[in-house]
Amino acid sequence: MASKLIAIVAGVGAGTGASVARKFAATYPVVLLARNPDNFEGIAKEINERGGKAVGISTDISDSKSVKDAIEAIKKEFGPDVGAAAAIFNASGGFLRKPFLELPEDVFSTALDVSAKGGFLFSQATLPLLLKGVQQKSQHPPSLIFTGATASVKANALMASFATGKWALRSLSQSLAREFGPQGVHVSHAIIDGVIDIPRTKEWLKELGPEAKLSADGIANDYWYLHTQPVTNFTWEIDLRPAIEKW
Amino acid sequence: MASKLIAIVAGVGAGTGASVARKFAATYPVVLLARNPDNFEGIAKEINERGGKAVGISTDISDSKSVKDAIEAIKKEFGPDVGAAAAIFNASGGFLRKPFLELPEDVFSTALDVSAKGGFLFSQATLPLLLKGVQQKSQHPPSLIFTGATASVKANALMASFATGKWALRSLSQSLAREFGPQGVHVSHAIIDGVIDIPRTKEWLKELGPEAKLSADGIANDYWYLHTQPVTNFTWEIDLRPAIEKW
Amino acid sequence: MASKLIAIVAGVGAGTGASVARKFAATYPVVLLARNPDNFEGIAKEINERGGKAVGISTDISDSKSVKDAIEAIKKEFGPDVGAAAAIFNASGGFLRKPFLELPEDVFSTALDVSAKGGFLFSQATLPLLLKGVQQKSQHPPSLIFTGATASVKANALMASFATGKWALRSLSQSLAREFGPQGVHVSHAIIDGVIDIPRTKEWLKELGPEAKLSADGIANDYWYLHTQPVTNFTWEIDLRPAIEKW
Amino acid sequence: MASKLIAIVAGVGAGTGASVARKFAATYPVVLLARNPDNFEGIAKEINERGGKAVGISTDISDSKSVKDAIEAIKKEFGPDVGAAAAIFNASGGFLRKPFLELPEDVFSTALDVSAKGGFLFSQATLPLLLKGVQQKSQHPPSLIFTGATASVKANALMASFATGKWALRSLSQSLAREFGPQGVHVSHAIIDGVIDIPRTKEWLKELGPEAKLSADGIANDYWYLHTQPVTNFTWEIDLRPAIEKW
Repeated sequence: MASKLIAIVAGVGAGTGASVARKFAATYPVVLLARNPDNFEGIAKEINERGGKAVGISTDISDSKSVKDAIEAIKKEFGPDVGAAAAIFNASGGFLRKPFLELPEDVFSTALDVSAKGGFLFSQATLPLLLKGVQQKSQHPPSLIFTGATASVKANALMASFATGKWALRSLSQSLAREFGPQGVHVSHAIIDGVIDIPRTKEWLKELGPEAKLSADGIANDYWYLHTQPVTNFTWEIDLRPAIEKW
Repeated sequence: MASKLIAIVAGVGAGTGASVARKFAATYPVVLLARNPDNFEGIAKEINERGGKAVGISTDISDSKSVKDAIEAIKKEFGPDVGAAAAIFNASGGFLRKPFLELPEDVFSTALDVSAKGGFLFSQATLPLLLKGVQQKSQHPPSLIFTGATASVKANALMASFATGKWALRSLSQSLAREFGPQGVHVSHAIIDGVIDIPRTKEWLKELGPEAKLSADGIANDYWYLHTQPVTNFTWEIDLRPAIEKW
Repeated sequence: MASKLIAIVAGVGAGTGASVARKFAATYPVVLLARNPDNFEGIAKEINERGGKAVGISTDISDSKSVKDAIEAIKKEFGPDVGAAAAIFNASGGFLRKPFLELPEDVFSTALDVSAKGGFLFSQATLPLLLKGVQQKSQHPPSLIFTGATASVKANALMASFATGKWALRSLSQSLAREFGPQGVHVSHAIIDGVIDIPRTKEWLKELGPEAKLSADGIANDYWYLHTQPVTNFTWEIDLRPAIEKW
Repeated sequence: MASKLIAIVAGVGAGTGASVARKFAATYPVVLLARNPDNFEGIAKEINERGGKAVGISTDISDSKSVKDAIEAIKKEFGPDVGAAAAIFNASGGFLRKPFLELPEDVFSTALDVSAKGGFLFSQATLPLLLKGVQQKSQHPPSLIFTGATASVKANALMASFATGKWALRSLSQSLAREFGPQGVHVSHAIIDGVIDIPRTKEWLKELGPEAKLSADGIANDYWYLHTQPVTNFTWEIDLRPAIEKW
């Protein structure tokens, strides 16, 4: 019997990651990766209490050893032949609006470590499981989805660190889409162009009304839709923004 | 009582247009526009026989008078206050792979007339109905969707006519997305990057197997998904291609 | 003996066109095309008085017959085998910042007629002369240069007409660059991203100082530089903006 | 008296770097940075023998300490208030065409270290000197120029490492162009789209003739031209390719 396929979400916090975890947990056991267990414990508990299955693993996505350990933990939990139906990379770092000459080297490095190297390590770790998902005839083509931002396509002044990491991640996603599409894995990149409505942004843009911010659950729906596209109709990239957003 | 909202599809033929018509007809009365009635009669009959409602109107989308007449016919059929939930522009023209110095002026003009001016006339005719859809509190934000192609973002050698029309249409869709998003109308552009599996292409790419071509029904699903996105999560552009496509 | 090569400039007015004419006239006899002779008479006179050679021809660039007549006039003046070293398309039209539903059809059509169809007619008329320039071993690769704008790559709200024409023109230039580069003709597109300092804009942006606007002579220098690139180093596209421009 | 302005070139080898050094050395004393002194000794000797001034400094551009040491060495040589007229970043790394799952982590990291972090360190080190160049009223606006590649805008299959570094570098250059343009420093990015004719590629594309490869001296000319653009006409990005290149 084929193993039950899992979904793996990296960069789980109180916003998009949690919504994505919740959405995919309705169909798959989910593995939640974040450096700080505080970030996944609440949503893991919620999913498990509602009858789903969620496993949180404390992982530094920019550290090769830590990512390997996470995969080992996954195999211990779900069996050595476990395949994945979806892997979602939602981590980011190095956000600091700052004159370039005052930008600390470690902030720039963090952006690269999380977005670029983290994306690389996550992809190298999960693609073998996604390819197993193809072999195990997953209902929907196994999906590798990357969360991008306005800064993935536009590098504004004072945003050198964050933008550089995000352009790097977009590049990775495009190369992988071209290489793994023909192997049956659907690689996508979502440009989130606006403020997401999460606890941290509760007070932002209030004057513009409740529809001025992206819904994290909406993003999760969009990711799920990408996941359900058949092999004849793969989308590499979508942009997402509130209707009222200026762009 | 609010009028029942309709969907309007321009450029209905045996492929994407018919699939889109069928998909949206499951929820809305549909109006099918094509110059040649042969192109909409079959699908209109099919929809009406299955209990849906479809009205075909012979329309030259590049002719101002003809488009106005179509709107008059729509109002006669559905009432003067009819609103629209969706308007889909799927027409194109001027496709001719030819050395530039041998490209007839009328082919180049046709590309512009259908893709650019046609897109303009269709948008000016349907946006008032879509805005009425907003007022009439449509379940999903009223949608104006344009069908693009590989040639919408890449102008290859020998493809000057078709590409020029398609770039023009993409530009129109971007400007409209920015203007009408804040008014509640969702304007999208889909880059169809590959061969669509329709009667005319039956023999193409056969050696690559059944998954080498885009599914027209799949495109219709993608358009429907765009239509169902809430105002917090609008996509302007998606690309769509078979998994095995080289790009 | 080879005919002396000429330069042809379409869209000559008091700004970029005049500067380009002046610059290229230092090396080549120049032909100046504009609908209204007022637009080329001053600069033609100036060039001829300084010992250069300039011929103005009243031409509607969007009209096939008018463009053909211009080419006939050129051949009458310079001989039937005249070749061109450069052809510069600087015409544009249909600029109107207006809510889309108030945009007159004729403004939208003008944008297409001038930018898209005009670009097509100008290219079909001048490319045979540019190819003769290749045969006649011009010192620099014969150049076909198109003037673009911010609106060539970004279609803002309320700018549907102008942007649509400009995107169309950019598409044309890309297709031609791919087709004619291997034949030795250098096709380029310049994105002019800012206000050009010309008589009509004298009062604009004054508060920002003399460097807030693009120099028309500077643009002419940039076009000349493109013209002098050897076949090993062709640029298709450059962007040009004042240092202080926000973008 | 103002210090004499210098030009700094990172990533000097037998190709573009040497040509750029030679070109800028005709006007400025040049500082040549490369990890391996073999890479700059020949060209430094040549420049010095011809009456120019060139100083080579062995530098690991991805190492913060090494880059700081290089700047100290520059100040020791040219004085503590030395300003720069130009800084050219021509380094790259991590080029390996390889299935993604076989791509070693250290190759991916090298691409990021050289292209992204190297670009960051070089920019933070040279921008203060370029800003001094502005204060010292350099003849041409001080220039920071980055060498890009086809892979800067297109991430092909099997090219994940190189492309990711190059997209990151392009992002950095765009953010810096927006921040430092208004301060008088001209930041540019050149997309080198083709094979450069250097000793290492001597045998490549021979069947296509001598014009199938980009000229390194031509690239140096293009960089010099960018350097000479006035503040009213800054180019952020140019693409460069042989006329016969398919793209």
